[in-house]
Amino acid sequence: MNWTTQFARRLRDIGHSDVVEILKLVERPEVTSFAGGLPDPATFLISEIKEIAQEILETQGVQALSYSPTPGLTPLREWLAQRMSKQGRPTAVDEVIVTTGGIAALDLIAKTLLDPSDVVVVGEPEYVAALHVFRSYQARFVGVPVDAQGLVPEALMERLTSLARQAIRPKLIYTVPSFQNPSGATLPESRRRDLLDIAGQFGIPVVEDEAYRDLRFEGEAPPLLAALDPGNVIHINTFSKIFYPGVRVGWAVAPKPLIDALILGKQGQDQCSSTLGQYLALAFAQRNLIDRQIESAIPVYRRKRDALLGALADYFPPMCEWVRPEGGFYTWVKIPKGLHAQKLLTVAIEKARVAYVPGNAFYHDRNSPNTLRLCYSYVQYDQIAPGIQRLGELISAAAARLYL
Amino acid sequence: MNWTTQFARRLRDIGHSDVVEILKLVERPEVTSFAGGLPDPATFLISEIKEIAQEILETQGVQALSYSPTPGLTPLREWLAQRMSKQGRPTAVDEVIVTTGGIAALDLIAKTLLDPSDVVVVGEPEYVAALHVFRSYQARFVGVPVDAQGLVPEALMERLTSLARQAIRPKLIYTVPSFQNPSGATLPESRRRDLLDIAGQFGIPVVEDEAYRDLRFEGEAPPLLAALDPGNVIHINTFSKIFYPGVRVGWAVAPKPLIDALILGKQGQDQCSSTLGQYLALAFAQRNLIDRQIESAIPVYRRKRDALLGALADYFPPMCEWVRPEGGFYTWVKIPKGLHAQKLLTVAIEKARVAYVPGNAFYHDRNSPNTLRLCYSYVQYDQIAPGIQRLGELISAAAARLYL
Repeated sequence: MNWTTQFARRLRDIGHSDVVEILKLVERPEVTSFAGGLPDPATFLISEIKEIAQEILETQGVQALSYSPTPGLTPLREWLAQRMSKQGRPTAVDEVIVTTGGIAALDLIAKTLLDPSDVVVVGEPEYVAALHVFRSYQARFVGVPVDAQGLVPEALMERLTSLARQAIRPKLIYTVPSFQNPSGATLPESRRRDLLDIAGQFGIPVVEDEAYRDLRFEGEAPPLLAALDPGNVIHINTFSKIFYPGVRVGWAVAPKPLIDALILGKQGQDQCSSTLGQYLALAFAQRNLIDRQIESAIPVYRRKRDALLGALADYFPPMCEWVRPEGGFYTWVKIPKGLHAQKLLTVAIEKARVAYVPGNAFYHDRNSPNTLRLCYSYVQYDQIAPGIQRLGELISAAAARLYL
Repeated sequence: MNWTTQFARRLRDIGHSDVVEILKLVERPEVTSFAGGLPDPATFLISEIKEIAQEILETQGVQALSYSPTPGLTPLREWLAQRMSKQGRPTAVDEVIVTTGGIAALDLIAKTLLDPSDVVVVGEPEYVAALHVFRSYQARFVGVPVDAQGLVPEALMERLTSLARQAIRPKLIYTVPSFQNPSGATLPESRRRDLLDIAGQFGIPVVEDEAYRDLRFEGEAPPLLAALDPGNVIHINTFSKIFYPGVRVGWAVAPKPLIDALILGKQGQDQCSSTLGQYLALAFAQRNLIDRQIESAIPVYRRKRDALLGALADYFPPMCEWVRPEGGFYTWVKIPKGLHAQKLLTVAIEKARVAYVPGNAFYHDRNSPNTLRLCYSYVQYDQIAPGIQRLGELISAAAARLYL
């Protein structure tokens, strides 16, 4: 059997996975990696989870090891509904679905709403796994620039108006409103309201992916998009950044008719998410340990961010620009025009022993040669400054050659 | 937002979920349920898993709670490759992908191979979740009868010949060769060889779903389809029936080019399966506890099967027929023509306090009024005979009214 001749058309759109390539970069121990977007294991409450795991297997072992309802464990959905309600989006239990991480939620949303050639509005840059999901559903992309304050509403308005002239209505607007992966940018409240006004005007649902929201280092959190317009916003979230990625538990909140369709889709995706993972997340949540883990994680990540921003100011050449993230895991760097972050990466790894993700991965058209993402969450604190120094020297030298 | 007007075309094909409906039937405690296909929790080795969970969190807590590679933990893939090799399908590690249960594997296969309107060959009857997955990819179905020895090769030959005349080549043949869900039938070796010959002749890959294979009560296991034709068979399996469904770990084995495509698809499905679940499965496997759990489960299920077959013989009217399964969880009953298992179900639940799954759910065209599936794995042993007696009396009475 020549398998590749048997592949469905969507495989041509998927092309290759930028994510797989990114994850490989973190595997080499001699390399200081600013690549993979992983939580710092120092924030894990290991002794607490050991105790809770023991207790669950002791008292509810059979249930925790059996199938669970497709929409998720009811008490976990209740807890999530309450948490969402407290965050300003009044939520009923049947407006919540538990998923196998945030990507699985996005997969279900795409499965439910996208036919081939449907248009999805994404940021430039955008979360790479979201692009991958939409590509698997043969979506077409329309990009809207993201600046240091997130998606630019005027640009969105302009793109949608121009599409409307061609009688094209996008099926979805996707965005990561807080500490965006990859740019680190957060949409302020005024832009959130503008975005929702525009989306409403054109009748387009908005997906907000709030994986990093709870990891805010300073300042006030703007309202959830889902709080400002519950009827038109699909909220995605995950325990991967605030609890443990290895339990694979995420969720989506949306109006019931859509959640019902997502549940139907999940029957054909994985039937139910890890029951044990859901029991662990629930027990952690009920004992306020999720909040404790968040509280103790924030200073860890803030300190790393400060080290990174300090090192960038010290060691990167003056023609570079970057975002100052108020939370989350990432910042985004523009290097001088004419440099190619993807080509530089080989040298960075081999010579400077530093890894990052070239910006191309985060562009729907893979065309942003002089940008890169730096993740500060996972790298060792004391390797940040030396790593950024080596990378800065490499970029300075490459930039100098440009002007020879 | 009127969500239903936004749905993708595939939602029309999915229609509704027969699985959701089935799982609801097991929820009422006063009902003796032969409906849901669940393992008997009495077969779970709870104290062993408690000990192992504790040890893993103690010694490898951080790794077990972090992301894991998309294709699965390497040592787990190695163990699976060895197990498959021992079962006659020589397997390299890169021919294995770990998935979030068996359905997730099937979802990835469909995503990789099926364009809308592609034809998939399925049994009549067939595993309901597989039908659901294929429907989500807008497949068209061609049905081949399943008798007490599984898929009928002559009928397959005839269908494929007739399709070839219309220049239609199905993209997949799907089958559950051992103790089929729902029929309980097992394909003997000669039929396996015939099936593969025919598939090869028409150039169609075969998916074998071997979720129940290890639960054989008696007799010799015929070879795996994947052992007889490794280049053309995609093998799917799961820990859900032999370890714990709640950890959500399954796998697929196939030639590397296909596995590579499945890995790409999994990046957009859930990125990685539960890391903790994989660690638990691996530790169980390495200590031979999976085999011990299988060995201790077999007599539990055999005894229940015997009770069910005995009760059917005692209490079901003579015009009924059923399969004698040599393993697994199910048997399949034909009730007299003119009776409607779906309509009878309401009465069965309300009056006789017995639940089963009407055969319609397992037909791609939902058209098999006088059949039903009985699952003996989960029901309490001492409720089997009384439950079947009440159901038998109901069917006898209904059949008697037919001839009034």
